[in-house]
Amino acid sequence: MSENKNKLRNISELGEFGLIDLITKNVTIHHKNTVMGIGDDAAIIDNGKLCSVVTTDLLVEGIHFNLIYTPLKHLGYKAVVVNLSDVYAMNATPKQITVSIAISGKFAVEHIEEIYEGINLACKHYNVDLVGGDTSSSMTGLAISVTAIGEAKKEDIAYRSTANKNDILCVTGDLGAAYMGLQLLEREKEIFKSTDGAQPKLDGYDYILERQLKPEARKDVIELLKELKVKPTSMIDISDGLSSEILHICKKSDVGCKIFQEKIPIDQNTEQMAKELNMEPLIAALNGGEDYELLFTIDINDLDKIKDQPMIHAIGHIADKEHGAVMITNAGQSITLEAQGWNQMKEE
Amino acid sequence: MSENKNKLRNISELGEFGLIDLITKNVTIHHKNTVMGIGDDAAIIDNGKLCSVVTTDLLVEGIHFNLIYTPLKHLGYKAVVVNLSDVYAMNATPKQITVSIAISGKFAVEHIEEIYEGINLACKHYNVDLVGGDTSSSMTGLAISVTAIGEAKKEDIAYRSTANKNDILCVTGDLGAAYMGLQLLEREKEIFKSTDGAQPKLDGYDYILERQLKPEARKDVIELLKELKVKPTSMIDISDGLSSEILHICKKSDVGCKIFQEKIPIDQNTEQMAKELNMEPLIAALNGGEDYELLFTIDINDLDKIKDQPMIHAIGHIADKEHGAVMITNAGQSITLEAQGWNQMKEE
Repeated sequence: MSENKNKLRNISELGEFGLIDLITKNVTIHHKNTVMGIGDDAAIIDNGKLCSVVTTDLLVEGIHFNLIYTPLKHLGYKAVVVNLSDVYAMNATPKQITVSIAISGKFAVEHIEEIYEGINLACKHYNVDLVGGDTSSSMTGLAISVTAIGEAKKEDIAYRSTANKNDILCVTGDLGAAYMGLQLLEREKEIFKSTDGAQPKLDGYDYILERQLKPEARKDVIELLKELKVKPTSMIDISDGLSSEILHICKKSDVGCKIFQEKIPIDQNTEQMAKELNMEPLIAALNGGEDYELLFTIDINDLDKIKDQPMIHAIGHIADKEHGAVMITNAGQSITLEAQGWNQMKEE
Repeated sequence: MSENKNKLRNISELGEFGLIDLITKNVTIHHKNTVMGIGDDAAIIDNGKLCSVVTTDLLVEGIHFNLIYTPLKHLGYKAVVVNLSDVYAMNATPKQITVSIAISGKFAVEHIEEIYEGINLACKHYNVDLVGGDTSSSMTGLAISVTAIGEAKKEDIAYRSTANKNDILCVTGDLGAAYMGLQLLEREKEIFKSTDGAQPKLDGYDYILERQLKPEARKDVIELLKELKVKPTSMIDISDGLSSEILHICKKSDVGCKIFQEKIPIDQNTEQMAKELNMEPLIAALNGGEDYELLFTIDINDLDKIKDQPMIHAIGHIADKEHGAVMITNAGQSITLEAQGWNQMKEE
């Protein structure tokens, strides 16, 4: 590689969208059965009767996880779940996964077993088959790459790009807890490092810790929507924070939206932790990420079907593009939503 | 992770087969359409009319490639090719790939562009679609994870486990060149590092360098076999050296084999480099790896169809398991083949 750094552009200048644009600008599609390439939660391959949806994620030590506080079994579980979440976000059913890991010399056989215990547990829980992978050395840390393959009828697939004006915006579960769990773990890590003999105080924080360390994908919601005969008009999973995901749907669907602060579901454990850390829980919900809930739109005529479902919360509606993507605060102010979730590149 | 290393087993003790056994021991298959899970060049998913074959590889800086002498464009190309090679080894046609990369702060936008130039070139050359992926930071080096998806009729798929007694063992192209290319690059790297102002001398070594830095997958051979109406009775790609791959076929098919030293194809450039470095070219062919040629068996009745094909070399035949896997040397000795290709874990 060239060392003439003066003329080179720093990756952090690009941002997420810029980097994706850079990567995709020369991509051409050759095959008719490639229904969807880069640009949604998963790629879609038409196999005739059914479609395959394919998605992949690469988790890297020190970036996506910190082994000081991440049990290896949980890490294996989470590495699978984050990919399954992308498959569910296409309104598809995950069926197979492959797992590649690169491990450095500091790991022993027992550590690999722990990781695969978590992987196998996730496979069992979500009814998917581990069908392949690759294992190699690494000079430094641990990296796990998972590819998930799901199945769906072509007409059932939910894209990011198909939200319509007046559709209702819904989120599942609650938001911000995974981020507050991370803040707690980081706080205790610092205390542990700076104080001799100090032990982490994690009792009583089970909910937010589990949301961070062992998240679940919303298989139950996808099944519920089928039961309720509701087909989302668009869908995405919330891995980078609500704001970022709403903007993905708005950009891809060429629409705007209006959401209401009071409707955003935040668990009381998240509120409590935020208070303790003197943080704003709303910010965690909007920008925190790693919640792996689903964000979707439904036709307004389907609102009655979902309005009494405790797992699903209507938080606003799709509007004309000209209105932008805004949140109405409890004080009645209109705030423009901004994507702040994706800052891994900038943190370096 | 636990730090009680005394009770932990070192990964290097396991070896490749031991590690695969460890990972697969608790894997259960839930879906009928998972035709083949772990255990061949690729997994197989039955989609009704056609099957998908899926394979994945993770390339890690410092383990699989050294950026001192690997151009990033070549690296991108090779990362794709090694996966396509696995798809061809199933007698299938690759159609889609996903690519995930983790990059550290030392890389600039231009470097990513170079990697994707290579990736896109491979996509064009092999007629596959880049359909997805993931890009993230890394604390240290570069990692590239590629998943390739191919297509085949179920009855056309060639497994590792289906070689029969008296079948003819064939290899394509020539062997050992990629390994000799690596030796040359390593030699020049050492000279460069230890001698002020010394420039690498790589002129005249084009063939072995290209075999190492920009290998090709044998799309042409798969197409030729179809033309010749030859269906391999078993097949594998040669990524870890001829010995290792022959043993995979013998173990999976529960057979032995006899190959002949004089039949093993070695290019004169490989011979020349080996001579210069005072190495044995046969060892490079048997154990060197990274040639990405195909090793396959055919029914003895198909021998006439392939015997005048310059790309294909019959090197021996399948025998009863009791005879073991042996090579008859030019001096008439019988030597037992051993798998020495996979020593990444041991090198640490």
